[in-house]
Amino acid sequence: MLSIPSVEPLTASKLRVEPSSSPKAIPDASALVFGQTFTDHMLTCKWNIERGWDAPVISEYKNLEISPAATVLHYAPTLFEGLKAYKDKQGRTRLFRPDLNMARMLRGAQRMAFPTFEPEELIEMIKELLRVDERWMPTEPGTSMYIRPTMIGTRASLGVGPSTEVLLFVIMSPVAKYYSSGAKPVSLLCSSSHVRAWPKGTGDCKFGLNYAAAVAPQMEAAQKGYQQVLWLLEDELTEVGMMNCFVGRNTPETGLEIVTPPLSDIILPGVTRNSVLALLRAHANPSHPFTLEGVPSQLTMSEKRIFMSEVASYAEDGSLSEVFGSGTAAIITSVERIGYKGGDVRVPVEGAAASGFGPVAGALYEALQAIQYGDVAFENWSVLV
Amino acid sequence: MLSIPSVEPLTASKLRVEPSSSPKAIPDASALVFGQTFTDHMLTCKWNIERGWDAPVISEYKNLEISPAATVLHYAPTLFEGLKAYKDKQGRTRLFRPDLNMARMLRGAQRMAFPTFEPEELIEMIKELLRVDERWMPTEPGTSMYIRPTMIGTRASLGVGPSTEVLLFVIMSPVAKYYSSGAKPVSLLCSSSHVRAWPKGTGDCKFGLNYAAAVAPQMEAAQKGYQQVLWLLEDELTEVGMMNCFVGRNTPETGLEIVTPPLSDIILPGVTRNSVLALLRAHANPSHPFTLEGVPSQLTMSEKRIFMSEVASYAEDGSLSEVFGSGTAAIITSVERIGYKGGDVRVPVEGAAASGFGPVAGALYEALQAIQYGDVAFENWSVLV
Repeated sequence: MLSIPSVEPLTASKLRVEPSSSPKAIPDASALVFGQTFTDHMLTCKWNIERGWDAPVISEYKNLEISPAATVLHYAPTLFEGLKAYKDKQGRTRLFRPDLNMARMLRGAQRMAFPTFEPEELIEMIKELLRVDERWMPTEPGTSMYIRPTMIGTRASLGVGPSTEVLLFVIMSPVAKYYSSGAKPVSLLCSSSHVRAWPKGTGDCKFGLNYAAAVAPQMEAAQKGYQQVLWLLEDELTEVGMMNCFVGRNTPETGLEIVTPPLSDIILPGVTRNSVLALLRAHANPSHPFTLEGVPSQLTMSEKRIFMSEVASYAEDGSLSEVFGSGTAAIITSVERIGYKGGDVRVPVEGAAASGFGPVAGALYEALQAIQYGDVAFENWSVLV
Repeated sequence: MLSIPSVEPLTASKLRVEPSSSPKAIPDASALVFGQTFTDHMLTCKWNIERGWDAPVISEYKNLEISPAATVLHYAPTLFEGLKAYKDKQGRTRLFRPDLNMARMLRGAQRMAFPTFEPEELIEMIKELLRVDERWMPTEPGTSMYIRPTMIGTRASLGVGPSTEVLLFVIMSPVAKYYSSGAKPVSLLCSSSHVRAWPKGTGDCKFGLNYAAAVAPQMEAAQKGYQQVLWLLEDELTEVGMMNCFVGRNTPETGLEIVTPPLSDIILPGVTRNSVLALLRAHANPSHPFTLEGVPSQLTMSEKRIFMSEVASYAEDGSLSEVFGSGTAAIITSVERIGYKGGDVRVPVEGAAASGFGPVAGALYEALQAIQYGDVAFENWSVLV
């Protein structure tokens, strides 16, 4: 990995706040569509290979002035993160595991030959942005503030090469409860003609480039009556739409086993994935106080490769117990149907009281939300702003 | 493939020209660095899923106003083309095979779920842009005008999905003679830890996303003393830096054989690649009047997979005659050294009079330039503006 020297480091103490002179009206939380409404302010941090990082600024959310020759428009040097802030019952704002987002962002910056920075400095500035836009913080149950840090290459020249100018910016979008009328399991179509990521590629980085080519396959799936794409590499499960994937199997011999693909260059190291693994392992550990309600304590959590032919055979023999995806936007999404080789693999979705989740998925969703809103403490995952 | 309806088609007859009020001074052609100087004007065509294409405009080259939530900055929906215009001895401006660039752009637009357009309409508007910026057209031998059509997704929302707003723009950059002090063969380092493109990916489209992840490997190669990366998939040759690749072998049994990888989803269908194939086949065809100076007429041009282990063994047994890349920027670039498995594979570069090209590469470079500048006619490749 290359390390790009940052002449002047990114420093939160140099942050300047220029309050917007035209604050907008706060929309009703129930009317929010994901990622379409933005707060009054944004954070911008400019980097230049000669100067390093300029003093960061929080100022009015507004259009960026970008050269038509800027590399981001031509060669796609862009990476992003997605994390959420939640209001707790005491009215305090909490971030969920921002250290994991920052670590991933930093790793991506290195792979993209972007400048690096101290993660703590950026977290500090995100907290300040949350404070500046405090009045935008949704308070209704299930709502949150989606935070989008982004880095783009802005050098205005057409040669393919290192980013000598970079803009790091953070925008925020208040989001409604994802499952406004109850959770709904989704249908997936296995990709047969498209591959999302490849060994020695960049599927493990949150690069824009991993997403652009997913849109047409997603539209093709929708035309065939499926909601998302199940990305396979040959027959191997990699990701569900934009989420990590989990498969549950239950046999009298093995008991309940939840499996997710191991981290590699074809799997995004999701923050929710990491949290699901940790919660399931804590639950299965008799000496750990944490439990998932309604989930048998005899449970194995494995990171190993999964093949769609296996999933289909588990569905056939009745041992498939559930399939779900994990991600920051929806937290947990259960799957009820997978289009595979011209037919449909049916997946049980038998959550308690028709919750729209499989049993483990539903328990994980409730547990994660309880931790995110600060109702339940788990390690130091929920960070006060 | 999806076809996105364009409610209102892209129409050259609606083009409006708004001349710049602050024309810039024309820089000396010898001082030009590739892709850093732009002409006075640019073409912009806006598309919206409800209206279709707005009336296109040629106006002052200036920064774009882009929402910080625009999809291009987050998910990399961007594609581009690169083509050149040349001044002939009669002072006329000529485009080189713009139909091939437009066909590739259109195919990319479909894969990116972007709107489509009539290629002829865009060619017509590019010609008009060349006429408007006529005074920028370099006239010195070896110079040309590099033309960069680009399409970006500009929808201002964070959901990953279809581009409901798209901007197509064309900018132009006058370029100096690529080999200002004579051609220099380059050194390549085989990528062992990075893959550029993969089966069922998008390596056959001119998408920005195929380029961003190439920068860090390119910098790593430079640190090790090589100029560009030779992209392998396992051991298979795919591309040289940003160029298609050709390998020449000569044995008493087979005669001279030039091989390039066949088109597939891991190979960009290069306009120069296509032209090299056509010229070599015309040369080898006794009934075709075209010949490449100094190249034996007994020559086989094959499109077939090539493995680096083969190239190394040809170098070993003395049958490797040359290796070169083809692309719009440099036209033809010969290779003199390939870093492979810890050692260096030496490639002969034995052009006439130390031209810096291998014998076939040099003849191709001269022939292509003669056609591009209109000194020699070959089919209808050179199109008058």
